[in-house]
This record gives sequence, structure tokens and C-alpha cells, in this order.
Amino acid sequence: MGVPIVGVVGGGQLARMMIPAAVELGIEIRVLAEAEVSSARLAATAVGDYRDVDTVMAFAKEVDAVTFDHEHVPQDVLHALVDAGISVNPGPGALEFAQDKLRMRQRLSELGAPVPDWAGVSNADELQQFIDAHGGAAILKTPRGGYDGRGVRVVRSGSDGADWFGDFDQLLVEELVDFRRELAQLVARRPSGEIRVWPVAETVQRDGVCNEVIAPAPGVTDGTDRLAQVATEIAESIADGLDVTGVLAVELFETTDSRLLVNELAMRPHNSGHWTIDGSCTSQFEQHLRAVLDLPLGDPSPRDAHAVMVNILGGPQHEEITDRFALAMEHVPDAKLHTYGKTARPGRKVGHVTVTGNDLDEVTYRARTAAAFFDDIETEA
Amino acid sequence: MGVPIVGVVGGGQLARMMIPAAVELGIEIRVLAEAEVSSARLAATAVGDYRDVDTVMAFAKEVDAVTFDHEHVPQDVLHALVDAGISVNPGPGALEFAQDKLRMRQRLSELGAPVPDWAGVSNADELQQFIDAHGGAAILKTPRGGYDGRGVRVVRSGSDGADWFGDFDQLLVEELVDFRRELAQLVARRPSGEIRVWPVAETVQRDGVCNEVIAPAPGVTDGTDRLAQVATEIAESIADGLDVTGVLAVELFETTDSRLLVNELAMRPHNSGHWTIDGSCTSQFEQHLRAVLDLPLGDPSPRDAHAVMVNILGGPQHEEITDRFALAMEHVPDAKLHTYGKTARPGRKVGHVTVTGNDLDEVTYRARTAAAFFDDIETEA
Repeated sequence: MGVPIVGVVGGGQLARMMIPAAVELGIEIRVLAEAEVSSARLAATAVGDYRDVDTVMAFAKEVDAVTFDHEHVPQDVLHALVDAGISVNPGPGALEFAQDKLRMRQRLSELGAPVPDWAGVSNADELQQFIDAHGGAAILKTPRGGYDGRGVRVVRSGSDGADWFGDFDQLLVEELVDFRRELAQLVARRPSGEIRVWPVAETVQRDGVCNEVIAPAPGVTDGTDRLAQVATEIAESIADGLDVTGVLAVELFETTDSRLLVNELAMRPHNSGHWTIDGSCTSQFEQHLRAVLDLPLGDPSPRDAHAVMVNILGGPQHEEITDRFALAMEHVPDAKLHTYGKTARPGRKVGHVTVTGNDLDEVTYRARTAAAFFDDIETEA
Repeated sequence: MGVPIVGVVGGGQLARMMIPAAVELGIEIRVLAEAEVSSARLAATAVGDYRDVDTVMAFAKEVDAVTFDHEHVPQDVLHALVDAGISVNPGPGALEFAQDKLRMRQRLSELGAPVPDWAGVSNADELQQFIDAHGGAAILKTPRGGYDGRGVRVVRSGSDGADWFGDFDQLLVEELVDFRRELAQLVARRPSGEIRVWPVAETVQRDGVCNEVIAPAPGVTDGTDRLAQVATEIAESIADGLDVTGVLAVELFETTDSRLLVNELAMRPHNSGHWTIDGSCTSQFEQHLRAVLDLPLGDPSPRDAHAVMVNILGGPQHEEITDRFALAMEHVPDAKLHTYGKTARPGRKVGHVTVTGNDLDEVTYRARTAAAFFDDIETEA
């Protein structure tokens, strides 16, 4: 066959970060973007609506394998592609569980994965009942449409979900987990079944948005560590059980009584794995491309003892983000700076910084220092 | 200012390998390619002749800084850009010494850099005289147009250059250096004068073409090593003396009596630095972009004790190079594979493989093993 062509639906920063991996390997990458100006515009060969089956089909027919920047492509579009004989990765059967949190919880429970207590609730009474049975508070989630803290809230009364019950047949309610910290276990799986695992990472959220990732999670020295083993087993069994192709991120709670519970899933390269670009032998983006093409997976070993990734959230309001390069580069020459070609907006992920090394305190300090140069100085004053 | 735009004249693999660095940083890159199908076609915004001043001017006017995939843009074109106020990196004054080997030798001699004995010769008599004074043999070079072993030959008689004297006023003749091995010292310099140095590497040639690069050069443990210090001093003084902007590769002979002599210069990212993509904190391609934009330079420290890069020369004759991915990836999961989107041709550089690690023998074996999967099996049989 010719040089393989991977088609990515969606033109966000995840599609953007697949471009360097594709260029280095020497495979072709094409992007179906939502708009003329997108983060992945360099590789955008089509612009259109990912919910329109004709648009997606026309794009997909010209590539060897389809994959995604996000999980929002509707099931009917996905099934139309599969019916047309197109390689869709992950497939609709797997993506369904990333698209619907209720179905995800149900399936994970069937697979025996450790999850918080949960229920599907259809009205205020059922919600109140769950709250009463779980200490007077719970987490309520819309089954669809949530990300970065949206579609998620703490509830203390059955009436706290009133505005959402109209939009969904059922909402997902979960126990409020008493957790020590949040972790993310990133794995990649290819259709032949091969799975590769990166070290489990700690993710630090701010206002419901990922702010910092530390890999490996502090206290985890290597893959033989108990925490690492449990996280790996959970993620591998989910990847197999859901028949995932590509990168799967399993977000976990480490509870105060030292259990791991599955919080969320993402079936694509994920913010918790951006450190792998600079910190691992094989980045999540290269691994995703390999998996999508059913090529042997690369070595996911970390390059250094510690990697810390800090998101650039918001960005400068009255300057280009690149206007801050000189300061950040001068002060932290070993910081790996990544910006996504997006305009600044409060809380928006517009870039990230990774630093790696042997001293975690030093690495953390340097990553935070470099990232801070991209904050909006005016709004902070 | 807006997001900076770097314009690269030439669409070969060096321009191609600048793309990932630009995408990761978040700067814009545009390429003026020679043909519709080029190695750097993903970023090609123009196709045309780099010798045509109007073509290059139209391209250059829309970017913030111009740089190059090769050193062949004529001086009149370069000067026209400078006269129009365009940032040209490196500038014509520096590039002149990369374009003309006679002028390079003259200038290096003026700077006091150690070079082989040399002379400009205009006819067979002068050549014979040099040969007689240097033990009966010498190296003859055309001042322009030579690369990868072309325009270079061993001569033993004044008549051995007969076919070249008609094309050039003068040829360059050099003593046949008795060398132990060849080294390359890669440095980057930005207009403000800042210089950063990668570890000196050993380059192994086959039929006049670079085949393998070992970084650091075996026996060099760190920058305090005498050999490393001398190589660094030579390269820094040349970068300063020639007012280079961007990456400069200084190819060196290590003589059997342990001196270093300058062989060739390249004023651009260079094959001897491809290992830096996977083996150094800051790759030569990222560093070149930083330098060209006069941004602070990154940390050039190696990521591991050893890096070995093996070129893929020629490639499969009856298959795509990517058809060999499965074998190479399966057998060497930590090999970093790079292919350039070029069609196979005997001896052509179509890709490279880098492996890094702590055991040089192991790293060398793994890099060679992975690269061998891309050889043309049929022509070898």
C-alpha cells in the first residue's frame, strides 16, 4: 500500500499534536476541522460539521483510518462509516461508553472495574433517595455534553437537579468520593490486542479543569509499585473490555482509604498524557497513530525520573501567547513550550509546558515558573 | 506582534523536520518548495524557483524571518531580500562562506581556525606543484556545487583535475589528511550573539555519504573533555567570526596525531544533528527556529548517555518505506523512526533512525537493527 493516511475528525489541539508525530514518522495526516481557523489548521484538508454524515463520509473515504480529536461524533455517523467499510478508531461500540456516562458506569460495573456507588435517576425523588443513602451529598452528572467541569455539580437535595431533568431521561448520580488525590492511567491498545502502559500520573485540577500533571504520580517508583499495578490492571481490563483502539485515559480517584475508583474515561489522547511528548520514549500522539494503523506499539518508558506538565489556561488577553516566549525561554531554557494556535479566553487551554529531570521539586518549580510567564498579567494585577 | 511566521526556502527534509518543532512551539512555518511534491509539502505555501528573485521576494515579504533548507540561494537574491528590509538568516555575508569552499578556506585561515594545508589552483601545473609538496596526493574540490561526495576527488597528478578547470577559475586543493575519525560540532547562534553547543559527535561516512552519527563522540564524557573543549572553541569562533544565525555544523577531522582540522561547514540544520530530535532537550530544528527569530536558545543537553543515528539510504525499491514500519517497530520498540516522504533511490537519504540509552554497544546495535529493516532486500540478495 501507499504511505498510510490517518484522517482526524476535529481540529483541536489534540489533532494539532498528532501532526508532529505524523510528520516525524512519515505518515500522512488529514484533519476535518470545524472552522477555517482551527488549532490543527496546518493539516486541515476539509472544513465542515462532524455531525453531518455526508461531510464526514466524504472526508473518511479518502483516508486509510479515521480517528478523533474528540468523542462527540454521533453514533449514526460512526455507524455509517463502519457500514461503508471504513476503519474507525475507536469504533462506535467503544465510543458509546465515552459519549454516555450512564452507559459507561453500567458497563464498567459489568466488567467489575472499581467505581464509586452510582445510580441512574429520573426525578427529584430518586435523586433525594440516593443523597439520603450517601451521607447527604452526591455528585450529579449529565450523561452527555460534559467536559472540563461542565455538566457536573455537587448536590445536597433532590431539587438541585431540577434544571437538568428536563433535558435527559436519566441523570447519573455518584457518591461523593473522599479522595486523597486524582490519578490518570494512560494506555494504548491496537486492534490486534497489544496494550502499552505509561506510568500512572497524578492530575491536579483547578476549578474542575486539569492544571498540572506529575508523572509518575509521586510515591510511585516503578511499575512494580502496588498502586501502579492496580492502576494498570484497571486500565488494561477496561481497554480490553470496551475493545478500545488508540489511547485510553482512565481518570481515577485514590481514596483516603487507599482504593482506586474509576472517575472518567477518555478514548483519545488526553491532557493527562501531554507530558509524554517530552517525557516518554513514545508520546501518546505517536502511540495513538500507531494503534490506529494497527502498527506495533512503541516503548512508553519515561525518559527521566520525573516529568511535570503545567497547562497554560487562558493566556495573555492583549498579546499573542508567543509574545511571552522570550521571557519564558530566557528564564527556563529546558522548558518545553507548547502553544496551540488558539486565541486567549479565560480558563481556555491554550498551551502547556513540560519540564523533566531527576529532582521533582526542581522540575515542578521550573515548569510552574515557565508556565507563569504566559498568565494574563493585567487581570492578575 | 502576531504569531511569528518563519519562511523556509527549500522543501527538503530539513524544512520538513522544522515543521514538528514549529507546530509544538506554536509558531507558523511556511515553505517555498521547488516542486508540488516535496518532503516539506505539508507546510508548502508556495512552489517556485529559489534562484528567481521575484519568486523568493513574493514569498519572503509575507513572513517575519526567512531561513533555508539548503545553501544554494544565489547571492543576488539574498541581497535583494536584505535590501527590501527582510530578515534573512543566516545572512548573505555568512552564507557566502557556505557557498564557496575557496572563500571559506580563506576566511577560516584569517580567523585562525585549524584547517588542512590548502591552495587555490588555476591549472594543472599549480595542482601538480601542490601535490608534489604534499607527498604525491591531495584532495581536489570544486568551490561550488559539491555535496554528499560530489565535487570532491583524490588526485595524484596535475592532470587529474582537467575536466573541472574549464568550469571554475580556481579549484580548491587540500592536503590528504591522515585522520583517525570524522567529528561534527553543532552549534546554534542567534543575532544577539548567544551561542549554544551540542556535544561533539562522531560521523561515519560510507561512499562519501553520512551513514551513522554517534553522540557524544565515543571517548568524550562531557564538555570538559579536551577534545570537546577544542571542538567547541573552534565552532564558536567560526559562528562568531562568520556572523552565523541559526545552526552551524562544523565537520572536523580528528587527525592521527590528535589535532582537529576543519573539513566542511554547513549553515543550517545538518545530518550530523538529527540525533538531537530524540536525543537532546532542544533539537537542532527547534533551536534553529529560536535563533532565526532571535529568541533565547534552549538547553542542548543530551537526554541520555548515548545517542546513535543511522541514516536510511536508498530505501525499498518496490515498496513504500512505511511498509517496513511493522517489522522495525516490532523488533525495536524504542527506535525513533523518521521518514521523509521521499521516493526510494539508491544512496538517497530517505529517513533515519535514532536510539538513545546508557549502553553504547546496545544502542548502536538497536539503531542499526531498526534501520536495516528499511534496506532494499531485493538488491541485496
